[in-house]
Amino acid sequence: MKKKFYSYIEKLQDTITTKLEEVDGSAKFREDLWDRKEGGGGRTRVIENGTVFEKGGVNISAVHGPLPAAMQNYFNVGEVDFYACGLSLVLHPKNPMVPTVHANWRYFEMYDKQGNILKDQWFGGGQDLTPYYLIEEDVVHFHQISKNACDRHHPEFYSRYKKQCDEYFWNSHREEARGIGGLFFDYCKATEEMSIDDWFNFVTEVGDSFLKAYVPIVEKRKNLPYSEENRTWQEIRRGRYVEFNLVHDKGTLFGLKTNGRIESILMSLPPHVQWVYDHHPEKGSEEEKLLEVLMQPKAWI
Amino acid sequence: MKKKFYSYIEKLQDTITTKLEEVDGSAKFREDLWDRKEGGGGRTRVIENGTVFEKGGVNISAVHGPLPAAMQNYFNVGEVDFYACGLSLVLHPKNPMVPTVHANWRYFEMYDKQGNILKDQWFGGGQDLTPYYLIEEDVVHFHQISKNACDRHHPEFYSRYKKQCDEYFWNSHREEARGIGGLFFDYCKATEEMSIDDWFNFVTEVGDSFLKAYVPIVEKRKNLPYSEENRTWQEIRRGRYVEFNLVHDKGTLFGLKTNGRIESILMSLPPHVQWVYDHHPEKGSEEEKLLEVLMQPKAWI
Repeated sequence: MKKKFYSYIEKLQDTITTKLEEVDGSAKFREDLWDRKEGGGGRTRVIENGTVFEKGGVNISAVHGPLPAAMQNYFNVGEVDFYACGLSLVLHPKNPMVPTVHANWRYFEMYDKQGNILKDQWFGGGQDLTPYYLIEEDVVHFHQISKNACDRHHPEFYSRYKKQCDEYFWNSHREEARGIGGLFFDYCKATEEMSIDDWFNFVTEVGDSFLKAYVPIVEKRKNLPYSEENRTWQEIRRGRYVEFNLVHDKGTLFGLKTNGRIESILMSLPPHVQWVYDHHPEKGSEEEKLLEVLMQPKAWI
Repeated sequence: MKKKFYSYIEKLQDTITTKLEEVDGSAKFREDLWDRKEGGGGRTRVIENGTVFEKGGVNISAVHGPLPAAMQNYFNVGEVDFYACGLSLVLHPKNPMVPTVHANWRYFEMYDKQGNILKDQWFGGGQDLTPYYLIEEDVVHFHQISKNACDRHHPEFYSRYKKQCDEYFWNSHREEARGIGGLFFDYCKATEEMSIDDWFNFVTEVGDSFLKAYVPIVEKRKNLPYSEENRTWQEIRRGRYVEFNLVHDKGTLFGLKTNGRIESILMSLPPHVQWVYDHHPEKGSEEEKLLEVLMQPKAWI
């Protein structure tokens, strides 16, 4: 399964970066290969200062070896070996009318220390959208494509993973969501209902849906006009993105505390960001409309 | 002691904000009074878009009540009552040749739940400098004034608290210091050598030294010319400041997790910030000289 899934994310990285370069029209992804001292490595691809994408990364990695102590505590296991691979992407468009997007699809295996017998295996991942201005049609589109991918595998997956997404990407210190959600799932393990191959089929279906969910939104909005004020609002909201990723995001914190490649982990941070003291949008403004939806996540479909 | 120290920080806040407004020449501090639901409150003063100071805050607070659960774990105590007051300041100058500064002086008391008998009391605090360009003379001045304040109370305080400062403000995921240090002390409790009044005298001596340590540097450098490239470097380094405050700083994390006033806690975050993928300054540049000192903290005196 690890070979099968790694081969899938390798191809998906190519498909996604090729398409995004085409959408951008000017910038190309820069590729950095890296090795992890303890085992494994990755292929980081970063785009900067494009016509459409101000900054973004589409990274794959496959790491293995003894499970670091911090992760032993987290998973509540002793000394075991692990294997983890996945694709992570974050795209920060320049135009404030185009939402930021994040996606991740990953696979994890754990073995006992002695015989290298497989003890546990699971999938995780999801995709979620962070708009700066609320264009309902785009939000519904993103959720509909995500729902279609779910519905082919289980009638309850969409509602379950939509809810988990709203819960996970919650900036608790601000009492607001990071964005308008999407899907988030983790610890997808073999059961009587879903074999590990069924999970593979589900996760790759979501992975395959990504470009269909995001690119039409970019194409529709990338040429919309915007003002200096729109841009300031985008940079302030990007500050909340930074706050979530550095204070709450488990993936980021793990990376930072377990000797991951810092530049590959922190490629998720936006290019230009502002913090303004006690900022509140004007009553009845488009900015305030976004906040209302973030403070009270809603059903889009 | 709590009245005495609170009255000290009230006056110090006035002294510092009055002087900083004079140095800035155009912007004034905006004052926000706030109450904490569980007991106490604060007086936040923020300056923005000044001639010299792009953003900064000089805040005092005094909070009390049952110790929040997260802090019970941290201090390894059961259900107790607490009182804490302090002054916290962070100043982000516009000119990249002027360093950012942070300072904090605080006092903490703990009581048993039953009889409100004082169980523990201590002081903490310090002051530290974060330059974007290394002007050795300024760094030595800041350390010398800090050392003078220490030397009046104990021959070992400067070397001890200078070392603790280098250790505390360490961005471990970057393997570099946040800035060039200063002083950091905590849990300063009454001993045979130092009574709690002696600690009060020491901490207030450091507090009184702050303007003398920082303002001459600002006055000397605030009119130095700078380029767009200097400004970009400043914004990238401010990103590291954000990373430290959101990932490592205990004060910030406590605030965020124990229902502090978010805007008063996060006033420490810089106004304009950049994250550039895998940024490295040119060999032999002024920017690289700063990094060398941050990667290997040195003795300035």
